[in-house]
Amino acid sequence: MKAKQIVLATRPIGVPKFEDFRFEEVNVGSPQKGEVMLQPLYVSVDPYMRGRMSDSKSYVPPFELGQPIVGGIVSTVVESNSDLFKKGDTVHGLLPWATTCIVSEKEISKTFPGISPSYHLGIVGMPGLTAYFGLTDICRPKEGETVVVSGAAGAVGTVVGQIAKIKGCRVVGIAGTQEKVELLRNSFGYDEVINYKTEDVEEMLDKYCPNGIDCYYDNVGGNITDYVIQRFNRYARMALCGQISLYNSTDIPMGPRILPAILKTSSLIKGFIVRDYMDRFPEAINQLSIWVNEGQLNYKETIVEGFDNIPKAFIGLFKGSNEGKMIVKI
Amino acid sequence: MKAKQIVLATRPIGVPKFEDFRFEEVNVGSPQKGEVMLQPLYVSVDPYMRGRMSDSKSYVPPFELGQPIVGGIVSTVVESNSDLFKKGDTVHGLLPWATTCIVSEKEISKTFPGISPSYHLGIVGMPGLTAYFGLTDICRPKEGETVVVSGAAGAVGTVVGQIAKIKGCRVVGIAGTQEKVELLRNSFGYDEVINYKTEDVEEMLDKYCPNGIDCYYDNVGGNITDYVIQRFNRYARMALCGQISLYNSTDIPMGPRILPAILKTSSLIKGFIVRDYMDRFPEAINQLSIWVNEGQLNYKETIVEGFDNIPKAFIGLFKGSNEGKMIVKI
Repeated sequence: MKAKQIVLATRPIGVPKFEDFRFEEVNVGSPQKGEVMLQPLYVSVDPYMRGRMSDSKSYVPPFELGQPIVGGIVSTVVESNSDLFKKGDTVHGLLPWATTCIVSEKEISKTFPGISPSYHLGIVGMPGLTAYFGLTDICRPKEGETVVVSGAAGAVGTVVGQIAKIKGCRVVGIAGTQEKVELLRNSFGYDEVINYKTEDVEEMLDKYCPNGIDCYYDNVGGNITDYVIQRFNRYARMALCGQISLYNSTDIPMGPRILPAILKTSSLIKGFIVRDYMDRFPEAINQLSIWVNEGQLNYKETIVEGFDNIPKAFIGLFKGSNEGKMIVKI
Repeated sequence: MKAKQIVLATRPIGVPKFEDFRFEEVNVGSPQKGEVMLQPLYVSVDPYMRGRMSDSKSYVPPFELGQPIVGGIVSTVVESNSDLFKKGDTVHGLLPWATTCIVSEKEISKTFPGISPSYHLGIVGMPGLTAYFGLTDICRPKEGETVVVSGAAGAVGTVVGQIAKIKGCRVVGIAGTQEKVELLRNSFGYDEVINYKTEDVEEMLDKYCPNGIDCYYDNVGGNITDYVIQRFNRYARMALCGQISLYNSTDIPMGPRILPAILKTSSLIKGFIVRDYMDRFPEAINQLSIWVNEGQLNYKETIVEGFDNIPKAFIGLFKGSNEGKMIVKI
């Protein structure tokens, strides 16, 4: 059986380009004992995947050149040689960008009933869990505190802001288009949103955070983070979730030193990836599902259609072309 | 009664100079109800005091121009109008640099019996408590882990290294003279010490920390901290205690951005001042006294003599002229 897959052709320099990817036709055999054959329904494209395209040491090993890209995918089981899954099951896992693939039963989990399958790539999947743990475990916002979220319109940021509102905080987002600003204010409960491309971020932070900043959920890094840290209150907590403004850097990024400000305020910075909290996933999925079903969490997807558009959707992440979670529907 | 005091004449630019201080003669009256008259026995000079000489917002307000400098001092009560203290008592507190002064009974505490009075400015005072809480509460070193300490030969660093050894860690110090390097190895139990002025710090960190770095107790900041952070293991913990290499900067110090490395390793950075732990001082003083009395903690003082030498001793901190805690004996 023939399948199409997308492999890493060259390691991107700076922002990824179409030429960094290659479409290949491959033969797919039959599932062996304990294996299943899958066809994708929804493919997730995420900023962290850029990191794996480089050759540097990180928390996950780099993608190999000539091998398919792997990411979050919701698939249908089309053939099963496993006792755990049967034909027609909907599953999710970290899977290759391929129109058909065979994987071990250990690589996948069934989707939860009662919630849309694609939501496993977002609100109750990696981004939702990432938002949940970074905010509730690291920032630990208290009622009445001011929470700032960078990359607020992304898959993680839209959830962070809403959870912070549930916790009774003043929530200020930072995003890059007027459309996103409106969306965050109107649909995701942000009290104030700064457009970092058209507004003076420092001035607006002073305006929107008159009592300083207690919690910072950082997805972007760079100058924006410098400005936020300078406004930290005593005992501020910063969940360090992403640094997308730096991922495409070819030089070592330089900036003002932040440690004096962290020292002066007895603040905390904690880096994390969602996997650090694997033991607590069930707790979080349960809580997030409750909030979604109660209507307390509004969840937004940007859906691009067609397998061939996966690279385009991925590259679009770095151009700010998504609102909320970017999904490719096959 | 006449007394001599040392006031801040001008706010230092860069490293403090003698001209930034002025000696004045003042009249001292008599203690009112609830007050005592004190004469200093031991005066502490500490790097953090540089921060208060500038006019910028910090965790403690800046010293005022024309007012006496205030710091840790052990004094004798020479006259008392307080029910809590009597003539001849030895007390300690944050007190003015003056040959005689009158303060409220609320500003002072009695020294602990059974431990040298000057130790209240060091091992069981601010530096010892600072070492204790930063290491045990933030770094939380586990047996067999690698702990790096910058500013290792200072009042705090010499204690940090020894507690880390008590906890069963591999301990690597960084200091600035060969004399300090020898002292740390021979008297304070450091496994390895890097002379950052004569050695390649990166190369030596690789050599002395073959398993990476789990805990970092930072007193200095700047390049040294950049090198250490690049070698963090997963879940590394950094106690941010001082940034002495940056205190005298007149520009905003720039450097490579550290957050990508913190993110990549799920590491933690926590700034603190010892006051954050005020509730737990008795626990720490008790534990430190036990270790001192058992001979597990070796404590070193550099003693300068004479009231008039206080500014010189203070300025010397920034030239690396102390080994261990710098004290002026009056």
